[in-house]
Amino acid sequence: MTDHHMTPDEFREHGKRVVDWIADYYEWVESQRVLPDVKPGDLRAMLPPEPPEKGEPFEHILGDVDTLIAPGLTHWQSPKFMAYFPSNTSFPSILGEMLAAGMGQQGMVWKTSPIATELETHVMDWLVTLLGLPEHFRGNGVIQDTASSATLCAMLAARERRTGGKANREGVPSTLVAYTSDQAHSSIQKAARIAGIGDERMRMIPTDDQFRMDAGALASAIRADKAAGLTPFFVCAAVGTTSSMAVDDVARIAEVVRREAPAVWIHVDAAMAGTAAVCPEFRWIHEGLEQADSYCFNPHKWMFTNFDCNAFWVKDRKELIDALSILPEYLRTAEHLSGDAIDYRDWQIPLGRRFRALKLWFVLRHYGAEGLRHHIADHVRLAETFAAHLSKDEDFELVVPRSLNLVCFAHKRGDAFTERLMEAINATGQLYLSHTRLGDRYTIRASIGGRDMQQRHVDAAWNLIAQTAHVLEASM
Amino acid sequence: MTDHHMTPDEFREHGKRVVDWIADYYEWVESQRVLPDVKPGDLRAMLPPEPPEKGEPFEHILGDVDTLIAPGLTHWQSPKFMAYFPSNTSFPSILGEMLAAGMGQQGMVWKTSPIATELETHVMDWLVTLLGLPEHFRGNGVIQDTASSATLCAMLAARERRTGGKANREGVPSTLVAYTSDQAHSSIQKAARIAGIGDERMRMIPTDDQFRMDAGALASAIRADKAAGLTPFFVCAAVGTTSSMAVDDVARIAEVVRREAPAVWIHVDAAMAGTAAVCPEFRWIHEGLEQADSYCFNPHKWMFTNFDCNAFWVKDRKELIDALSILPEYLRTAEHLSGDAIDYRDWQIPLGRRFRALKLWFVLRHYGAEGLRHHIADHVRLAETFAAHLSKDEDFELVVPRSLNLVCFAHKRGDAFTERLMEAINATGQLYLSHTRLGDRYTIRASIGGRDMQQRHVDAAWNLIAQTAHVLEASM
Repeated sequence: MTDHHMTPDEFREHGKRVVDWIADYYEWVESQRVLPDVKPGDLRAMLPPEPPEKGEPFEHILGDVDTLIAPGLTHWQSPKFMAYFPSNTSFPSILGEMLAAGMGQQGMVWKTSPIATELETHVMDWLVTLLGLPEHFRGNGVIQDTASSATLCAMLAARERRTGGKANREGVPSTLVAYTSDQAHSSIQKAARIAGIGDERMRMIPTDDQFRMDAGALASAIRADKAAGLTPFFVCAAVGTTSSMAVDDVARIAEVVRREAPAVWIHVDAAMAGTAAVCPEFRWIHEGLEQADSYCFNPHKWMFTNFDCNAFWVKDRKELIDALSILPEYLRTAEHLSGDAIDYRDWQIPLGRRFRALKLWFVLRHYGAEGLRHHIADHVRLAETFAAHLSKDEDFELVVPRSLNLVCFAHKRGDAFTERLMEAINATGQLYLSHTRLGDRYTIRASIGGRDMQQRHVDAAWNLIAQTAHVLEASM
Repeated sequence: MTDHHMTPDEFREHGKRVVDWIADYYEWVESQRVLPDVKPGDLRAMLPPEPPEKGEPFEHILGDVDTLIAPGLTHWQSPKFMAYFPSNTSFPSILGEMLAAGMGQQGMVWKTSPIATELETHVMDWLVTLLGLPEHFRGNGVIQDTASSATLCAMLAARERRTGGKANREGVPSTLVAYTSDQAHSSIQKAARIAGIGDERMRMIPTDDQFRMDAGALASAIRADKAAGLTPFFVCAAVGTTSSMAVDDVARIAEVVRREAPAVWIHVDAAMAGTAAVCPEFRWIHEGLEQADSYCFNPHKWMFTNFDCNAFWVKDRKELIDALSILPEYLRTAEHLSGDAIDYRDWQIPLGRRFRALKLWFVLRHYGAEGLRHHIADHVRLAETFAAHLSKDEDFELVVPRSLNLVCFAHKRGDAFTERLMEAINATGQLYLSHTRLGDRYTIRASIGGRDMQQRHVDAAWNLIAQTAHVLEASM
C-alpha cells in the first residue's frame, strides 16, 4: 500500500482502541445524562470550520470523539432511555457490523456477493421459524433499512398488482385508494405520497376504544369508495401502533377485505411488536397473518440488532419483483437470466445494499431462541411492574391498558400538567420519555425494551416520575 | 447485565479478534480468487437449516465466518476487482463504522442525536469546500444511503414544487414529464416509476457520439411535450454515466431548461465521478452545477468511505422538506417547532437514520484534502496506463476515449468474442470485469478505482486480458 492509507498493522492497533472505547461506553453510559445538555448549534460551533488539508493522526481523531462527539450523543443504549421505541444494539450485532464493514460487500445482485444474498434468505427463513410466521413467507424474505421502506415497497407491489403494471408504465391512475388506521405510523401516509396516491385517497380508518382499526368502518369505507367508482388496492394493518402498541385484528381486517375487495393487498406492519412473537405466549399478535400479502418487523428495535435492519416478507415474490425490477445491460448476469439466483436489488428501492444479514446471523446464534425469549418476556414483565407502580398512585392513570412492553399514562391534573411533567423529567437527564396524543389526550409513553433494562431502572424511573410530579405540584 | 448478553469484557476479547480478522483479510484478499467459485444454492446448502435453540459461543460463530462466509465473498476490496464501479472502504472508514455501531444512535430528529445531525451538516459543508461545489449548497446537505434514493428525493421535491404540493395531496397528475439521457442510470427510471410518473412520461434523450445528453434533443423534447399540453418538471443530468463515464454538459442543459421550461428542476447525478472534483484538474466535470437544484455523489464509491454513504445537496432545503415532511404528534419536539434545528427525517424516504457522518468525518480527517487528491489523481493516471496498453494492441480498441478512471474496450473480432473473452477472464478468478453496451456494441469496462490498486495490478490485468484473448483465438 502507498502512503496516506492506514496499514493493516496500524488498523490492528487503532481498531483495538476503538473496541475498548465501545466496551468502555457501555460501562459508563448509565452514569451519563441520557439527553445531552446542548442547544441546536452548540456542537457545530466546536468543530473546525474547514476540512483539513493534511491527514491527521488517528490518535487526534479518536481523542476528538471524546471531546466533540460524545457530549452530543443522545444515549439510546442507556437503560434510562424509555422514549419512542428502543433502537437496540448488542455486542454480537456490533461485531457483525464490524465484520461487514471490513468485508466491504455490495450485494446488489447474487454475483456481487453470493454469501450476502444467500445468508440473507437463510436468516430470514430462520426468523419465519422463530416467530412462527406463515410458511409461504419462506424464501420470500428480504432485509430493508426501515419499516418505512418496507411499507413503500409493499404499496408499490400492491399498486402494480392492482393496475397490472400499468402504473409503472403510464403513471398512477387517480382512482386507487389505500387504507390504514388513524393510529398507524406516519410512514404509511408518507408512502402514499411518494407512490403517487396522495393524502386524499389515503383513508385513515377510525379506531376502537383500544385504538385498533375498526373493521366495520373499514368495510364501510371500502364500500363507499367502490360505489364512488374508486379502486381500493392496499390496506395496512398495524400490529403494535407507535402511540400505544395497539394490535389491529388482522383476521377481521382480512375477512373484510375478502368480502368487500378481495384484490386488495394486505400489508402488516409489526415494526416494534413483531419480535414479541419469539415467545409463544405473545404469538397471538400475528393471528390472521397467513392472509396478509406482506409483513415486516424491525430486528433493529427489539431484537438486539443494530439499526438498520428491517425484516420484510411477501407471500409471492414475483409481485414484488414485477413492481421493482429494472434491468439495464450493465447489471445483467448469467445467474439472473437463469432464474437460479435472487438479485435483491429487485426487492427494494435502492440498487446497492450492505451485508446486513451478517449481524442478524450473529445475534440469532449468540442469543439462540432461548435467549431472545428470556429477554423479551423479561421486558414485558418489567413493563407490568411499571404499570403496577402507576396503578397504585392516585395521581396517575393508565390512558390505555399496558400493551406488551409499552405503558401509556397521564397525570390526572390534565394535559398541561402532564406535558410539564414530562419536560421536567427529561430535563433532569435521568430519564428520557416521549409523548403522543391518545383520543386527543396528552400521553406519556414509557417504552421498556432497552437491552440492559432491569428492575432497578424501572423502579428508579417510576420514583423519578412520582417525585417530579410532587415537586411540580408543590410549586404551583 | 443478565445472562445471555455478552459482557463488555467478552466484547473486548472478541472485538480484538474481529479487528485482527479484518486486518488479516486485507493481507490475504489479493491472493484469493476475486469472484468466488460457487453456484447459486451452494452456500445455503452448507448452513444449518434451523436457528439454534441455545446461544452459541462466539468462537464458533467467528470460526464459521472462515468456513461458511468467506468462501462466498466477492472481493470488492481486492485490487483485482475492476467490475462495475468501486465500492471502496478504508480502515479509517471501518473504524468510524465500528464506533457508529457501538454508539447505537438513531438520528431521525435533532433531539434523538444532536451530534449525528450537526456533524452531518458539518461534513457535508466540508465536502462543498473540498469539491468546490456551489456555495448555496452549504447547510443544505444530507447523507442518503444511495444515489437511487437521492434521485428519488430530488424527483419528489421537483414533483411537489411543480404541482404546488398538489401531488402529495391529490395524487400525481398525468401530465408531468421527466427527462434524462439514454445513458443515465436505471435508478432514474425506477424513481419515475416509484414517484408515479411512469415510463411513458420519462423521456430518454438521445446522446452524442461521446454518450453525453444531446442538449438540442432535450430542447426539442421539452417543446414537443409543452405543445402537447404536458408539464416538464424534472431533468436529470449524469456527470459520469455508468456505462462509459460520459459527462453531460450541465451548463448547456441548464441553458435549455432556462429557455424552454424554467420551472423544471435540474438534478445532477455524479455518483461515481463527483469525487474527482477534489482535484482541481478534474473540477471541469461540475461546470454549470451552480444552476442545478440538486446534486449528489457517492463517497461510498471513490472516496474510501464504506457503503452506504451518498452525499446529496439541494439549493433550497424548504423545497425538499415541503415534499417529504410529515409530522405526527409523537415526533414533535420543541427544537423542531422553533425551526432552530435540522430534523433529517424530513430530508429522506425512511424515518430512522444511522450515524453515517462519523465514518465520513474519519475519512476526511485521516486522508486530508491532500491524501484524497493524491489517490484520485493516481487512479486516473493508472487508467491512462491501462488505456495505453490497449491502444498499442492491434486486436483491441477503445470503444470511447478513456474518461477519468474508466476504460471501455472491445476486441476487434466483435461482440461474441468480446463477451467470451470477458467470461473467460472472470472465470480465472484473477480479475473481475463487467460489461455494458455502447451504441449496441458489447463493451468491457475496466474501472480503475480500487483503494489498493497499483501499477502492478493494472499491468497484470492487461497481461491477463491479452493472454486470454490469444488463448481463445488459438482455440478457434
